[in-house]
Amino acid sequence: MALPDRMKALVVTESGHADSRQDQSLPSLAPHVALEEIALPRPGPGQALIRVHRASVNPSDVAFIKGAYGQPRVKGVPAGFEGVGTVVAGDTPLIGRRVSFFATHSGTWAEYALTDVATLIPLRPDVGDADAAGLLVNPMTAVAMFDLVRQDGADSFIATAAASQLGKFLMALGRDGGIRPIAVVRRAEQAEMLRAHGAAEVLVSTAPDMARQARDVLGRLGPRILLDAVADQVSADLFFAMGRGARWVIYGRLATEPPRLTEPGQFIFLGKRVEGFWLTGWMRETPRARVEAAIAEVQARFADGRWRTDVAAVVPLTEAMEQLPAVYGRGGKVQIDCGGAAAGTE
Amino acid sequence: MALPDRMKALVVTESGHADSRQDQSLPSLAPHVALEEIALPRPGPGQALIRVHRASVNPSDVAFIKGAYGQPRVKGVPAGFEGVGTVVAGDTPLIGRRVSFFATHSGTWAEYALTDVATLIPLRPDVGDADAAGLLVNPMTAVAMFDLVRQDGADSFIATAAASQLGKFLMALGRDGGIRPIAVVRRAEQAEMLRAHGAAEVLVSTAPDMARQARDVLGRLGPRILLDAVADQVSADLFFAMGRGARWVIYGRLATEPPRLTEPGQFIFLGKRVEGFWLTGWMRETPRARVEAAIAEVQARFADGRWRTDVAAVVPLTEAMEQLPAVYGRGGKVQIDCGGAAAGTE
Repeated sequence: MALPDRMKALVVTESGHADSRQDQSLPSLAPHVALEEIALPRPGPGQALIRVHRASVNPSDVAFIKGAYGQPRVKGVPAGFEGVGTVVAGDTPLIGRRVSFFATHSGTWAEYALTDVATLIPLRPDVGDADAAGLLVNPMTAVAMFDLVRQDGADSFIATAAASQLGKFLMALGRDGGIRPIAVVRRAEQAEMLRAHGAAEVLVSTAPDMARQARDVLGRLGPRILLDAVADQVSADLFFAMGRGARWVIYGRLATEPPRLTEPGQFIFLGKRVEGFWLTGWMRETPRARVEAAIAEVQARFADGRWRTDVAAVVPLTEAMEQLPAVYGRGGKVQIDCGGAAAGTE
Repeated sequence: MALPDRMKALVVTESGHADSRQDQSLPSLAPHVALEEIALPRPGPGQALIRVHRASVNPSDVAFIKGAYGQPRVKGVPAGFEGVGTVVAGDTPLIGRRVSFFATHSGTWAEYALTDVATLIPLRPDVGDADAAGLLVNPMTAVAMFDLVRQDGADSFIATAAASQLGKFLMALGRDGGIRPIAVVRRAEQAEMLRAHGAAEVLVSTAPDMARQARDVLGRLGPRILLDAVADQVSADLFFAMGRGARWVIYGRLATEPPRLTEPGQFIFLGKRVEGFWLTGWMRETPRARVEAAIAEVQARFADGRWRTDVAAVVPLTEAMEQLPAVYGRGGKVQIDCGGAAAGTE
């Protein structure tokens, strides 16, 4: 297949990190990315070029383009961490195959993306593009963190921001694995949906009797791991209300106000600890066999319907500057249609 | 030897924990303990009765009598966690031997103490009572935490409250072990003393350019473990200024103002963590051979003068109510003379 010389892409407009703490809102894309036509990236040794079908828009993408992620921006390079597409060139036997992937060199918010071949995940045909576009960041993080929960041995765990896509995946993993999930959400009307996804208990962080309810639920279910996307005082208070040996595993930081460690004595006498989880680090440090098994489990869950990506909107790449801010952060996933599937490369 | 029926002891006057956060000052003993004559405790199976020579007064003792320690008080029971004395009765072949010990059943601020025989440490004759009175809490904590530093593999570490007895022990361990200690103190005039004890660098937390100095020292020495007795914002800021994989090990909480976790993203992207250290837990979980080796190392260090307990004052048991508050917390250790050595039991 002949490849074009140039492609359309949403490229970041700044380099490095932002100077100040950023919140998670996205009133406009314009200060952070621009739709440009740029040279097609060329795969080097160990790399693959992918014609992108669909790209995910995750909180980590939004944090990244705003300069508030753990990795620095490079001006002029396309944004977008993950997506689904067809391998069209590169140092791999997977050319022509449909893959999910994590874009390590040139992002997924573009017609073509460039990545290390190690990140390519050949897809089962029964996993559709809507699920395949977000196969890594949320599903793999959910499976990997649920490993921590299983290894810890308690028969309950807590997840904050539980109404997120990742939170819903965790609820189902807990229910199916017999480890009762405690969902923490901000709005009472999310409770029923969370129970439907598998939550054994739902704590509403804005409820006036949250502290009392939390004590009651923690006392009955005895969770020892708090999987936390927020890192605010609600999370800290839950952590200090948990029992001996509790672990506060921070994998996101939606909050802008830093939490206070109100009970440092609990680190000493109750053996508690605070740590982090980062999928990139997990993929690097975990035996390949476990990673492969996790990928297989993720695909199986999407294929048989135990998991489903709640897609709120799909915006075309060329319309994203205008349409994306209006639909982002309203509940459900937003994805970008990058055109590859329609182009018949599949 | 005939034992008396009754003994003098400083007994705690309240049960359980205090309602509110306590600072570390000790303006008076009177609200917390009282000098009383009580029945001599009787050793049960697995226990030993010790005629106390000298008892230590540690920050953990003061926190305990004020109801601010991780273990609840029991009204009417003698205070005092550690001391040196002669075994006079019990379920042990060590009767007649001079021992350091941790009082698990009836405290050391008394003429006699009762403890599990497992805590008895037979003493070398060349370790004097001044060092033997505080053989466990500070020296063993220093050796055990220095194990963490050694296992971590960096060639530097940080210790807060470094002018404390424990801090000075850590400085010497670092210097002798070739792992450069960074001492954090509150007053500039403590710097010279800390360097004499082995500090490679001294950071003065109250200095106006503390943040800049800390960045410079951390950048040059690359410590990965922060051994922290304070748990305040100075500690938190140091932790977040440290590099990838940093561990904040809290073993004390001198501060009353809880620190803020200003950079939760570092748990995720830099693999940092917060944990605690408690000697009681370490003794329980560590293989007996390592504990024995640590005890031997502590005694050898006192015997050959590499370590020395800085005793600021020794107050008689019967005068402690009046004399102890005036000398406590002024620098150097305060000990209580419980009379056993003078009584010729040695």
